[in-house]
Amino acid sequence: MRIRLRNPDRQVEAEGPMSVAELLDHLDVLPHTVLVLHEAALVTADHVLPADAEVEIRPVISGGAESAPRCAICRAPAVLEERRHRAAWCAEHLVDHVHRQVRKAIDHPPARPDGERMCSYDDRLLVAVSGGKDSLALWDALDTMGYRVDGLYVGLGIGGYSQRSQEVCQSFAAARGLRLHVVDLAATYGYGTPSGAAASGRSTCGVCGLSKRYAFNRVAVDHGYDVLVTGHNLDDEAATLLGNVLRWQETFLARQHPVLPATGTNQVRKIKPLYRLSERESAAYCVVRGIDYVVEECPLVDGNTGHDLKAAFDLLEHGAPGLKAQFLFGFYDRQERLVDPVTADDVTVGACTSCGMPTTGQTCAFCRQRELILAALPVTGGVDSRGGAAATADRAARG
Amino acid sequence: MRIRLRNPDRQVEAEGPMSVAELLDHLDVLPHTVLVLHEAALVTADHVLPADAEVEIRPVISGGAESAPRCAICRAPAVLEERRHRAAWCAEHLVDHVHRQVRKAIDHPPARPDGERMCSYDDRLLVAVSGGKDSLALWDALDTMGYRVDGLYVGLGIGGYSQRSQEVCQSFAAARGLRLHVVDLAATYGYGTPSGAAASGRSTCGVCGLSKRYAFNRVAVDHGYDVLVTGHNLDDEAATLLGNVLRWQETFLARQHPVLPATGTNQVRKIKPLYRLSERESAAYCVVRGIDYVVEECPLVDGNTGHDLKAAFDLLEHGAPGLKAQFLFGFYDRQERLVDPVTADDVTVGACTSCGMPTTGQTCAFCRQRELILAALPVTGGVDSRGGAAATADRAARG
Repeated sequence: MRIRLRNPDRQVEAEGPMSVAELLDHLDVLPHTVLVLHEAALVTADHVLPADAEVEIRPVISGGAESAPRCAICRAPAVLEERRHRAAWCAEHLVDHVHRQVRKAIDHPPARPDGERMCSYDDRLLVAVSGGKDSLALWDALDTMGYRVDGLYVGLGIGGYSQRSQEVCQSFAAARGLRLHVVDLAATYGYGTPSGAAASGRSTCGVCGLSKRYAFNRVAVDHGYDVLVTGHNLDDEAATLLGNVLRWQETFLARQHPVLPATGTNQVRKIKPLYRLSERESAAYCVVRGIDYVVEECPLVDGNTGHDLKAAFDLLEHGAPGLKAQFLFGFYDRQERLVDPVTADDVTVGACTSCGMPTTGQTCAFCRQRELILAALPVTGGVDSRGGAAATADRAARG
Repeated sequence: MRIRLRNPDRQVEAEGPMSVAELLDHLDVLPHTVLVLHEAALVTADHVLPADAEVEIRPVISGGAESAPRCAICRAPAVLEERRHRAAWCAEHLVDHVHRQVRKAIDHPPARPDGERMCSYDDRLLVAVSGGKDSLALWDALDTMGYRVDGLYVGLGIGGYSQRSQEVCQSFAAARGLRLHVVDLAATYGYGTPSGAAASGRSTCGVCGLSKRYAFNRVAVDHGYDVLVTGHNLDDEAATLLGNVLRWQETFLARQHPVLPATGTNQVRKIKPLYRLSERESAAYCVVRGIDYVVEECPLVDGNTGHDLKAAFDLLEHGAPGLKAQFLFGFYDRQERLVDPVTADDVTVGACTSCGMPTTGQTCAFCRQRELILAALPVTGGVDSRGGAAATADRAARG
């Protein structure tokens, strides 16, 4: 069906038939803030819209464009407005909004059978925290919502930036009585991000990403967590998807999803419960919840292509609020059909001959990278090839 | 296979196996400007690269980054360099380059069986010219290459801009002894773009696009042309594709191709032989060929979303030269699989009950729009519903 949304005026499409209530939920529009017109007649939430319906969703809260925005729920002065949602919230209802979006992500992940959730209240969750807004907002939200969730901070050796990030995570955990694991890359694996990049000739972002993903899974496996949680948000995921679509990277397109099941032993499920929320929403959530997060950006990301993708997408989102969500969620709706069946076929995952973690080859990419780095670096004593488990166990339970 | 390209350093993928010569042709790299390495060994043009090959293409023309660029063919000082091609050309070889790309587009359209060309030297071609760089460069190139090609200018009633554009087209045709059809929208159909938009409440770009497409096909049909040619270039097509992918507009995705066959009576094949060339290349071609074109932009396009898409894409192309081509050509390679089979199914095309031109409904979109506009405008005398043919016949053969 074709839906006309107003202020700003634009059209989106959705697959029908579905009820008005389902459509508004799909579009994240608060029912009491709009009128819904089908064939120029007002319709109510239970009305079923046919597949070829022409629908207009008309806002009823007037004056939003010029006057100070008010909370969509209680009409108090708002602290944040999001054009994509055509809504604004006071501090209290912003928190509700964020929790509702996280709950929606967890309870109804895209393109999964009804009833299949990202995780349950019985699962032991491990959230990877960087000290930034997204991961701390997520940890706070999951904890507040009643999930059993510990944190993991990986120290990447990026000087004062890493030091400040670690302190922020430790303060956060200590204030709430939460458990935080800390893994220092240099102490555990013998290199930090800058030295590893210099030694291997690889990009810092490449070395950092591979090391972090490895450490996340390794700690989750070693400590028996069921699910690894990361703070990737809507802006991250939309930009990543854009980069992969622009280059038609089929392997990456096949694997981009807010739920990645464990495909072998020594691997845990990975979930991204913030994929429905923008960076701006998670930052605002931190502010209203009093979460102290590291505002500075990593000093090494300059020239990272992900930044170009975000800048380009922001330009487009500005002229078409909701475009990122439309692109990302629309992709999930079509992913099965879009992805080359050959690419999507499960590859055989075995155990790395060096560390036992999952790999599609003989030795995993992390061990190969580490070997390359250590061969070029002065040897640091006391680090063996299984070094991770002991080191992380020692330092857990700090928070 | 995975290909590493240098200066700037980046990776692209291609489907193998194929020979080195085929790969360089696929990437539009001039063979004598590079070395090709497969498994760290030099290979020659006939060497067949397997599907999983890791290939490096290394430029051998040094100093390009700092010193004045030289023509890739004759080493004379260059007049244009294109980072996407990792090449530069003198004026003479730039013309060759443009002709070669047009020839490649015509002789080997993407995802079509070998030997199926966009058009032949026997076809009667009609190129739609606006007075801008792309359509005039294309008309010049096709004429120079020996095609039988007339021009069509549609006067859209945009004041002095339309007047200047028409004069440029007429001068171009007269200087070369080419035939130019001129259709004035207001004289033939009773409205111009600004008045039609105001009367119908539709966007000027919407009214203009529908009117132009209709007039192009109508003139081609009325005068017995085999093929309608438009000057859409690589930047246009990549930006359009990006807009359609961001919104997952499946109907448009199914139809985006540089060759659109005629799907009913009163419809001619449409082709876009410039789809492999950037705006910058067609503008430079005009300059070196001494083609006087209208540099000013249409005064009505302000806020056109196509401009946002181009600006966003230019930001990305700057950091990754060749990205637009990779995105567009990669799409064509996968189009059949990417598009929903339901969407791609041919719809039944019949004749408009009002004008006889092709439509999937009873009355075509142009006639419906025109009826809406004329109902709101003061009536202009002497225009009947079949008005187009007589008016265009009168004014043809001016050039």
